[in-house]
Amino acid sequence: MSGEFSFSLISTDGAARRGEISTPRGAIRTPVFMPVGTAATVKAMFLDAVRATGTDVVLANTYHLMLRPGAERIAALGGLHKFMGWPHPILTDSGGYQVMSLAKLRKVGEQGVTFRSHLDGAMFELSPERAIEIQNLLGADIAMQLDECLRLPAPEAEVARAMRLSLRWAERSKRAFESAAPGRALFGIVQGGVSPTLRSESARELVRIGFHGYAIGGLAVGEPQDVMLATVEETMIELPADKPRYLMGVGEPDDLLAAVARGIDMFDCVLPTRAGRHALAYTRKGKINLRNARHADDPRPLDETSQCPAARDYSRAYLHHLVKANEMLGAMLLTWANVAYYQELMNGIREAIAARRLKDFVAETEANWTKEPR
Amino acid sequence: MSGEFSFSLISTDGAARRGEISTPRGAIRTPVFMPVGTAATVKAMFLDAVRATGTDVVLANTYHLMLRPGAERIAALGGLHKFMGWPHPILTDSGGYQVMSLAKLRKVGEQGVTFRSHLDGAMFELSPERAIEIQNLLGADIAMQLDECLRLPAPEAEVARAMRLSLRWAERSKRAFESAAPGRALFGIVQGGVSPTLRSESARELVRIGFHGYAIGGLAVGEPQDVMLATVEETMIELPADKPRYLMGVGEPDDLLAAVARGIDMFDCVLPTRAGRHALAYTRKGKINLRNARHADDPRPLDETSQCPAARDYSRAYLHHLVKANEMLGAMLLTWANVAYYQELMNGIREAIAARRLKDFVAETEANWTKEPR
Repeated sequence: MSGEFSFSLISTDGAARRGEISTPRGAIRTPVFMPVGTAATVKAMFLDAVRATGTDVVLANTYHLMLRPGAERIAALGGLHKFMGWPHPILTDSGGYQVMSLAKLRKVGEQGVTFRSHLDGAMFELSPERAIEIQNLLGADIAMQLDECLRLPAPEAEVARAMRLSLRWAERSKRAFESAAPGRALFGIVQGGVSPTLRSESARELVRIGFHGYAIGGLAVGEPQDVMLATVEETMIELPADKPRYLMGVGEPDDLLAAVARGIDMFDCVLPTRAGRHALAYTRKGKINLRNARHADDPRPLDETSQCPAARDYSRAYLHHLVKANEMLGAMLLTWANVAYYQELMNGIREAIAARRLKDFVAETEANWTKEPR
Repeated sequence: MSGEFSFSLISTDGAARRGEISTPRGAIRTPVFMPVGTAATVKAMFLDAVRATGTDVVLANTYHLMLRPGAERIAALGGLHKFMGWPHPILTDSGGYQVMSLAKLRKVGEQGVTFRSHLDGAMFELSPERAIEIQNLLGADIAMQLDECLRLPAPEAEVARAMRLSLRWAERSKRAFESAAPGRALFGIVQGGVSPTLRSESARELVRIGFHGYAIGGLAVGEPQDVMLATVEETMIELPADKPRYLMGVGEPDDLLAAVARGIDMFDCVLPTRAGRHALAYTRKGKINLRNARHADDPRPLDETSQCPAARDYSRAYLHHLVKANEMLGAMLLTWANVAYYQELMNGIREAIAARRLKDFVAETEANWTKEPR
């Protein structure tokens, strides 16, 4: 491994961008969808299948890995790439979001956050510096600054306070990151709820500090899609064109299309993997709930035109049977099919931007989604 | 598909036999281990991986499939091979064993058995004729006669009664099987508990009726290994050399070695797959419980010399982590490694018989099993 982290813009179509991130561990074609590998595994999938769907980068969760098996342990075993058997790029989040959503008794102060593990109640501390240290121990190709994630809705003054604390943590994260190995990247995270003023302030200040890329955090937490997209648009104004832009935790396929059209380059979301464990298939023709009895005698595959064996080679009747019988193979096949569909969608998006026909691609894709009865 | 069912003996080493079963769906190298695909899936495995471990035939359970999704449904979908995506040989049991072990309110009479489904309490009837009909609907390459399986221990008179009922059912099964598609085979099942006299009577009478192969049922239900093996030896005396002999539900690797040495050709057992879902790995050097904390920092794979990626390419530390985190990938990898180990063992057995060195192979294999701390 050698080389620098860099981002190059290949072509644009309106606000949408086709680009490429270079890392010492390989290239990331953007717009990119990152499957989530929470606990050093993309749930229910072998990583060679994840790769074969067209995945350039996976996300792993600092919070989960710091609790179990521990960052120092993973470092001693040669780092996260070796531990999980994924030699390609990995982005790690900073833990802030899971501390908010999973940990018990969390207490936020200027220095950082203390919390109890949701696994065994053990006390942990996470500061901006420790979050960077953990991500460096894991060996993340792209690390994220620690931010304070609020449970929403929250009063605007509280949103402003958390956003400004996150800015101070961004400064400290950048300083702490100076000792990171060459070629690794650190992203800042824009916060500010759904307030355009706060989002603009957050983005401007992060750009002033200077990062390898910029993420938009604190969205896709239950707000309507148009509110999310309006906030993305406001934030975009402040973000430099020559750095990647990452919309965290998003989303449904139609969120991806809409956000790409507004200039987002990177996404992660548990939806394709989580849905795969809950009998839900994403396909070209829309979502299919395999638990539904109408599939019991249906010999058709999920999508006979898919490149993915899981979507192409197994009947809906068989998938329905596996789901009803709680067989692990049901989750294995549906997760695989879903990640493959997401990556097929991203591939279509990238090709459409390159051909300057994203608008048509979006219209065709959305029209196709209506073709399966829900 | 065309051709007949046949069994040819290739070589012998003492009582052990190296042979080959021909079926219209492909050859089965014996001695053979059949992974169990209870509900039309070898739990937690893709069937291409099952095949790649060297699996020639899988077993599926009539009881489970008749309840869900139903034999007529599978037939309408093109049969079990197509339904599950396994074009190679399939052996189905007759349902008798699961009716005993799983069903509620079972009632055995001369005609057959009535019982309630353990899934939803629905009433079902299983007669020798219906068991054959179901197996024909599934498209089994090797079908088994319905037998009455007792909960043991049971009084000898009761064992004798059930054995003789099973013989009458064997006659009816054979008659019912006359309409089966060409190339399919039907096996009789020797019963009689651990009584040499009853076993001999059962075997003699089955041979008189005449089957494509003979199974030994009702063993490996908790009796000591030497009692099981003594019963196998007694039964062997009555079984013709030119037909395959199948020891049902067996077993641990050392059971396989001991039974092969006594002339058994076929085995099935849930152990490798079940153990894989319970953190237990079978390896050349013995069993490894991945739940044990001593593996947390161990960078070694289960077996660096294995042909199986699951055993060769993942550290024990990672497997331990997956098991502790209840990640599906843990069960996926350990099941794969276990089935691969069982098939590697069977391959070694077959080569050793061909080279007339089974005794040495058994000694070497058993010595190796002591090399991992339990």
